[in-house]
Amino acid sequence: MGSKKKSEEEQALKAEVKALKETLAGQQMELRNKGLPVIVLVEGWAAAGKGSLIGDLICELDPRFYNVVSPTVSPERKDRYPFLWPYAREIPENGQIMFYDSGWMENVVRRYLRREITAGQYKDRVRSVKEFERQLRDGGYIVLKLFLRIDREEQEKRLRALREDYATSWRVTEDDLWQQREYKRFREAYEEFMEETGDVIPWHVLDGKSKRTAVRDALKLLTKAIRKGLEEDRYVGEPFKEDFPLVKMPKLREVDLSPALEEEEYEKELKKLQQRLGELHNVIYRKRIPVVIGYEGWDAAGKGGNIRRLARTLDPRGFDVIPIASPEPHELHRQYLWRFWTQLPRTGHIAIFDRTWYGRVMVERLEGFCTEKDWKRAYNEINEFERQLTEWGAVVLKFWIQIDSDTQLERFTARQNTPEKQWKLTEEDWRNREKWPQYEEAIDEMLEKTSTENAPWHIIESNDKKYARIKTLRLTIAALEKACAEKL
Amino acid sequence: MGSKKKSEEEQALKAEVKALKETLAGQQMELRNKGLPVIVLVEGWAAAGKGSLIGDLICELDPRFYNVVSPTVSPERKDRYPFLWPYAREIPENGQIMFYDSGWMENVVRRYLRREITAGQYKDRVRSVKEFERQLRDGGYIVLKLFLRIDREEQEKRLRALREDYATSWRVTEDDLWQQREYKRFREAYEEFMEETGDVIPWHVLDGKSKRTAVRDALKLLTKAIRKGLEEDRYVGEPFKEDFPLVKMPKLREVDLSPALEEEEYEKELKKLQQRLGELHNVIYRKRIPVVIGYEGWDAAGKGGNIRRLARTLDPRGFDVIPIASPEPHELHRQYLWRFWTQLPRTGHIAIFDRTWYGRVMVERLEGFCTEKDWKRAYNEINEFERQLTEWGAVVLKFWIQIDSDTQLERFTARQNTPEKQWKLTEEDWRNREKWPQYEEAIDEMLEKTSTENAPWHIIESNDKKYARIKTLRLTIAALEKACAEKL
Repeated sequence: MGSKKKSEEEQALKAEVKALKETLAGQQMELRNKGLPVIVLVEGWAAAGKGSLIGDLICELDPRFYNVVSPTVSPERKDRYPFLWPYAREIPENGQIMFYDSGWMENVVRRYLRREITAGQYKDRVRSVKEFERQLRDGGYIVLKLFLRIDREEQEKRLRALREDYATSWRVTEDDLWQQREYKRFREAYEEFMEETGDVIPWHVLDGKSKRTAVRDALKLLTKAIRKGLEEDRYVGEPFKEDFPLVKMPKLREVDLSPALEEEEYEKELKKLQQRLGELHNVIYRKRIPVVIGYEGWDAAGKGGNIRRLARTLDPRGFDVIPIASPEPHELHRQYLWRFWTQLPRTGHIAIFDRTWYGRVMVERLEGFCTEKDWKRAYNEINEFERQLTEWGAVVLKFWIQIDSDTQLERFTARQNTPEKQWKLTEEDWRNREKWPQYEEAIDEMLEKTSTENAPWHIIESNDKKYARIKTLRLTIAALEKACAEKL
Repeated sequence: MGSKKKSEEEQALKAEVKALKETLAGQQMELRNKGLPVIVLVEGWAAAGKGSLIGDLICELDPRFYNVVSPTVSPERKDRYPFLWPYAREIPENGQIMFYDSGWMENVVRRYLRREITAGQYKDRVRSVKEFERQLRDGGYIVLKLFLRIDREEQEKRLRALREDYATSWRVTEDDLWQQREYKRFREAYEEFMEETGDVIPWHVLDGKSKRTAVRDALKLLTKAIRKGLEEDRYVGEPFKEDFPLVKMPKLREVDLSPALEEEEYEKELKKLQQRLGELHNVIYRKRIPVVIGYEGWDAAGKGGNIRRLARTLDPRGFDVIPIASPEPHELHRQYLWRFWTQLPRTGHIAIFDRTWYGRVMVERLEGFCTEKDWKRAYNEINEFERQLTEWGAVVLKFWIQIDSDTQLERFTARQNTPEKQWKLTEEDWRNREKWPQYEEAIDEMLEKTSTENAPWHIIESNDKKYARIKTLRLTIAALEKACAEKL
């Protein structure tokens, strides 16, 4: 009788799982049609069955519209990018589901237990993780976080079985055995991490002992999360956070644009500074300091020429100039910071962005390419993003190349009258010019809210381009010298 | 008097270099406007001054429109991708100049001298290099190949100087010292390689002893190559090469589409085959065999369902389904195979392409998205590309999912009448259907010319979808079993 009952229960469970899988397959098409992206983070103990659980979740799905990644970081690449980089670059595009087979939780906890990061760094990373998840949620992502649990005895049994079978023994790593020995420490660390990171996106702990019920529970949670995502407007706004240490910035109209340089002084100074920058480039390369330089400024302010003077004596293998145009479709279909995450420099390299992520709070705000909620929360998001960069060890420099409206008109007119420069001037430039006051308002707000101590804005007076070039060179050199002095 | 003359010569050289740099800067804008891409490959001896030469070539250029890469392959990633992959993924987009600081020549020669590849592999790679360069040239790229030479004594002197200075000693690698010891062997190998690969794109050997004249000579060559590229139609066509070993294919209209399977047999067989495929996936993962599967077929032929059955029991961490839609702008701005190069699987992984590079000789041919010359030479290019994959060790499987026109109409109509399937049917599908005869002709030609012995086409009769699924599974299993048996 008992076994009959058990078999009936099993039948019921099987039917339930089958129905849930069908529901999920149907939801996948709805997600596709509505262009909603889903992130499923599957964390848990070694040998708890994460891979097999994911295999079960996807088996009825259309493989064109989901993906599974397990972003492990090879020892030689560790720390060459920010710790969230392997995950941020893999976020799905709209209409896609991405399964992470282990992710940022395992990364942070394991490196902390190995003492590769300090208690302070651990705290920063926990905060970054929460910011990252919140940004994804606010950006329209449905995020589900699962933790697959097994107890110490079960893990020991499974690891032993895996090791004893030749076909599977290679799967058991030194790390897994270490976890088994240190089960208690790991458990405490996992629990602490979940407690600290569960308030924005909650954690769901699944019992990994029974594969079938774990699959059923995961399917229930996933279909529920997707249903909620399909039905609700999930955006939860936040007011601008006052807790970033801000540097006070002047309003643009208060900036004195008269500074200028004589040709002779300029040439002498330029040569000297470029040589110094070239030397420093070598040092930051050897000290593996990453450098992110962002240029923003009015049309015809002289960004291009300024960048050229800066780049000129750098070792070309160690820097990149990244021109940022309007996003392409595959970029539009992901959170807006994604295309910057994927272009970050390695440690020791310099990335010079010709226009930046601040497009969000300027052109995208003014042209209506994003909603008011989008650009209003972007100040926080950008401050968080830049703090993640500086915590990684990057020097972040942001230059606002400033001219006045008369100077712009002069330069536009000169371009119009010089055949080989006409290509530089477009209809759009004239249209943007008409919106000068609105832009100025947006830029003032941007400078006010995003000039953090770790990544301050520098206003570069560029009515005289020579003066502007010397000033950016000096600021860059000063920042690199400081970083080189601070890092052994 | 002698020193005065020398100084006059120096002045003249300086003026010449300055003028050439200005010419180059002007050409860069022309390249930009015309959307022409340039590749400058700089090879040469260790310490010959490659990096410094590149630094001189670029110093007047706009850094937004050029880039410098030195694609070194880390030991752990070596052979995980085809040997041309690090270079192919870095080709510039239209309007950009890409400088390679060492490239495929150094890679092939060095690995051959190290005995990491056999004489036979060396020969294959030389051939692949020539194919790669020719494809780029035919695809509209201006390609310049420079080799910077210094003699043994000069190299010894420079390496010693570099090592003795603390600031530069880290730049001298074990490999450089090895080259110095084996100077003669390297010289012979370089000369042989240049002789073998100089017929399509010629080599230019520069004397690295004098930096100034090397820069002048490089600038002359580069500006000349660009001028020629800007003025001429550089396309040199080739007739279809008969020398690929081809498998004879039937015409589509001769294919018997009656094979079908009963539900019961199908279910039994499906289960068995999927299990076997899952096991094999483990073996190819451990043996590090890369697998590339391409699906092509008529609209509504059942590609999606077929792929789903194939992917179902694969370990999701080890495969990717890559849906190929119309190219995005950044893809259109590069040679058409680039977007496939960048999505190749690592060794041990499976990439399933849902539509493939064969778009070139089907939709792009019929819709006029490329010229007649473009698609006519694509048969060679694709055969070469696939041979490079199989020589790397990949299993390449290509499935043509075949149905007849009546079956397509039936399925279209069914889709139209089923609300939850309507999204699958677009206006474009109906338009394509009208061109059935033209497509059939193009497909017949494609099957005839690209079914090589190393990467044959398989026609999958799919009037009965069940039959089709079982057949692709069986073919895949057979191919993987063969590959696993052949690789220890």
